[in-house]
Amino acid sequence: MAGDGDANRSGSAVLEAIELKKRGAELPEGLVREVVRGYSGGAVPDYQMSALLMAIFLKGMSYGETFALTAAMASSGARYSFPECVDKHSTGGVGDKISLTSLPIVAACGAPVAKLSGRGLGTTGGTIDKLEAIPGFSAALTEARFRRQVDEVGLAIAEAGEVAPADKAIYALRDTTGTVDSLPLIGSSIVSKKAATGAGHLLYDVKQGSGAFMKGTEEARELASLLVRLSEDSGVQASALITDMDEPLGSAIGNALEVRESVRFLRGEETPADLSEMARIVAVRLLELKGISDAEGPWNTPSPPAQPSRSSASSSPRRAGTRTPWRLSPSRGTSARSRRPVPATSRGSGPWGSAAPPWLWARGERRRRTRWTPGSASRYWSRRGTRSRRAGRWRVSTARATRRGPRP
Amino acid sequence: MAGDGDANRSGSAVLEAIELKKRGAELPEGLVREVVRGYSGGAVPDYQMSALLMAIFLKGMSYGETFALTAAMASSGARYSFPECVDKHSTGGVGDKISLTSLPIVAACGAPVAKLSGRGLGTTGGTIDKLEAIPGFSAALTEARFRRQVDEVGLAIAEAGEVAPADKAIYALRDTTGTVDSLPLIGSSIVSKKAATGAGHLLYDVKQGSGAFMKGTEEARELASLLVRLSEDSGVQASALITDMDEPLGSAIGNALEVRESVRFLRGEETPADLSEMARIVAVRLLELKGISDAEGPWNTPSPPAQPSRSSASSSPRRAGTRTPWRLSPSRGTSARSRRPVPATSRGSGPWGSAAPPWLWARGERRRRTRWTPGSASRYWSRRGTRSRRAGRWRVSTARATRRGPRP
Repeated sequence: MAGDGDANRSGSAVLEAIELKKRGAELPEGLVREVVRGYSGGAVPDYQMSALLMAIFLKGMSYGETFALTAAMASSGARYSFPECVDKHSTGGVGDKISLTSLPIVAACGAPVAKLSGRGLGTTGGTIDKLEAIPGFSAALTEARFRRQVDEVGLAIAEAGEVAPADKAIYALRDTTGTVDSLPLIGSSIVSKKAATGAGHLLYDVKQGSGAFMKGTEEARELASLLVRLSEDSGVQASALITDMDEPLGSAIGNALEVRESVRFLRGEETPADLSEMARIVAVRLLELKGISDAEGPWNTPSPPAQPSRSSASSSPRRAGTRTPWRLSPSRGTSARSRRPVPATSRGSGPWGSAAPPWLWARGERRRRTRWTPGSASRYWSRRGTRSRRAGRWRVSTARATRRGPRP
Repeated sequence: MAGDGDANRSGSAVLEAIELKKRGAELPEGLVREVVRGYSGGAVPDYQMSALLMAIFLKGMSYGETFALTAAMASSGARYSFPECVDKHSTGGVGDKISLTSLPIVAACGAPVAKLSGRGLGTTGGTIDKLEAIPGFSAALTEARFRRQVDEVGLAIAEAGEVAPADKAIYALRDTTGTVDSLPLIGSSIVSKKAATGAGHLLYDVKQGSGAFMKGTEEARELASLLVRLSEDSGVQASALITDMDEPLGSAIGNALEVRESVRFLRGEETPADLSEMARIVAVRLLELKGISDAEGPWNTPSPPAQPSRSSASSSPRRAGTRTPWRLSPSRGTSARSRRPVPATSRGSGPWGSAAPPWLWARGERRRRTRWTPGSASRYWSRRGTRSRRAGRWRVSTARATRRGPRP
């Protein structure tokens, strides 16, 4: 009986929401929560949800509605909490291996990284897809194992499990009903997942250009601003970069190739300048978010007092996206401090000269299990048939295509 | 394999249609046909169709798109052809018994009536619902039986079976996704059914006012104009009236009561003036459509030559709805002709004085089977608990409520 009552309430809630939204009115927060709950639980059928999504697509949503949707979806599944950790999220670009390159730098500089990551969407591979190109690599960690790895290694990347299942279901429906490219729906989808994965400090890398979701600077700026505001209101200290995606980043595309190029970068071998530059910029931003404000300065100076969170200019929604990487010029010199020694970077050769960061492969289990070497990734790639830029042709290969249907 | 190809084509057609319509572009005729075919056949799922319907609801459709939708839905099931017959369609009002009262007059004046009718929607009962209040009455006639009755009696009313099944499925989906009140969707829904039922001459009675679907005159005028234009382009000679529905028509509401009041009218007993006036006006319009142009004039004069179809002013879309009943003033006198004798009407007492038209109940089988008398309808009504205006309170009772879900 209680179940029937819930179903009735959700059924009338979605109809009420459709009526309001098709006239362009604002959806009350409670109504949004009820609809999301009903859709997750199966009481609201796909065909009503898709009508509502199309009305939202065409009539838009206010910030209040978007935040209500974000919060409702974030609460629909498991929630984690890593308030001390940093994480980054890219809106997806071709050859984007910035998580693989910048996060180890950040961890080496003393900011713990807890990245619960998703699969790729469309033509862009997710970080998990890339890592799984390493034979034997498993991204399926238990929560305890994940936490232990963050504590011990300073960096853990695992697949986000049942995080924000309502978002997953709604995304699948949007994907088959032409309602993907809506700013409030994109923003709430991204932030609901990131808020549920629980890192306390978050950097968004919003890609713009012909190879990105957002084609123009203006819409990228809007999305960046929305992501930061939604995150801050969800209790996450956030900042955003807008970066170009008119051509692939680095010289490798394809999951295994990208891992190989990332390791080359981290070992200090020669890699394209755009990749090392971008990895450096993202790492600096993440360190700033964590209060390690002059990560690029000289090392061996004492640690500064921790910055008060949320007060830094870079996390202000108004300024998000205005400090695009090519304008970023972190001050060097006089007041430069860091919590751990950071070698000066030299563009194009990786931050540590010719040596790989010792902690990256030094810790036991994973290294022993995977037996990964650059050569094996190369062979793996050859089996998959992907070619690098040097082979003269581009071919995008991501491990999983993403045309998912709605819930059965 | 052919089936799979069809499904794929329909699947991509509906996505293409959604993409076009959400940007406000026009849907090509072939695409509309493909989507309707796909939805009827099950290849297009409800959730995609409802997203498209919401996009149509919010972005509108051009006349060309609306006609394409009308034609596609009309061709989705059985099609009948009664080119010599007249029919009328009301958009539905409370106490609307004009079909029951005007069509017998029209038939008596020599215009054969072939009415394939539907059930009621919302609070308005359909003609079939009303007739079934007569105990034992069956509206399920075979096509042969229906045609024979038109030939022998001059009037047949039966339930429309598998006429425009695509419209039926789409209507059920619209009903549960907030996409009912869209002019092009309403217009194409009505005309697809009427075009498939095949009467050659059609009068639309578009109700406006607080008890009608269309609340204002302007939107009623738009709908009337659309209905006439779609019908003419479907090969049906059409005209439309806009009539008030701010209070119920006549004094009876409830299916059985309405039948009883209609019979009282046809027997020439006293009935409210609004009912007899409206029945007269609709009958005159229908006779005009059939080329019996001065049905209200003196009788016993020779028949005029048939009017060329489509040329009459009353069937012009531009003028549809402008000749509202209260302005209608059919010329009386000099050139008045009719094909069969028509007594002069006297308002409030029915057109035949005190005698019921002899053909109405005179033909065998139905009369014998039903044993219907005004008293039995009255008793039936009492069991249902509906009260007439004379009992001091209104209560609308229709035989079937209409909240139909989408296809299982």
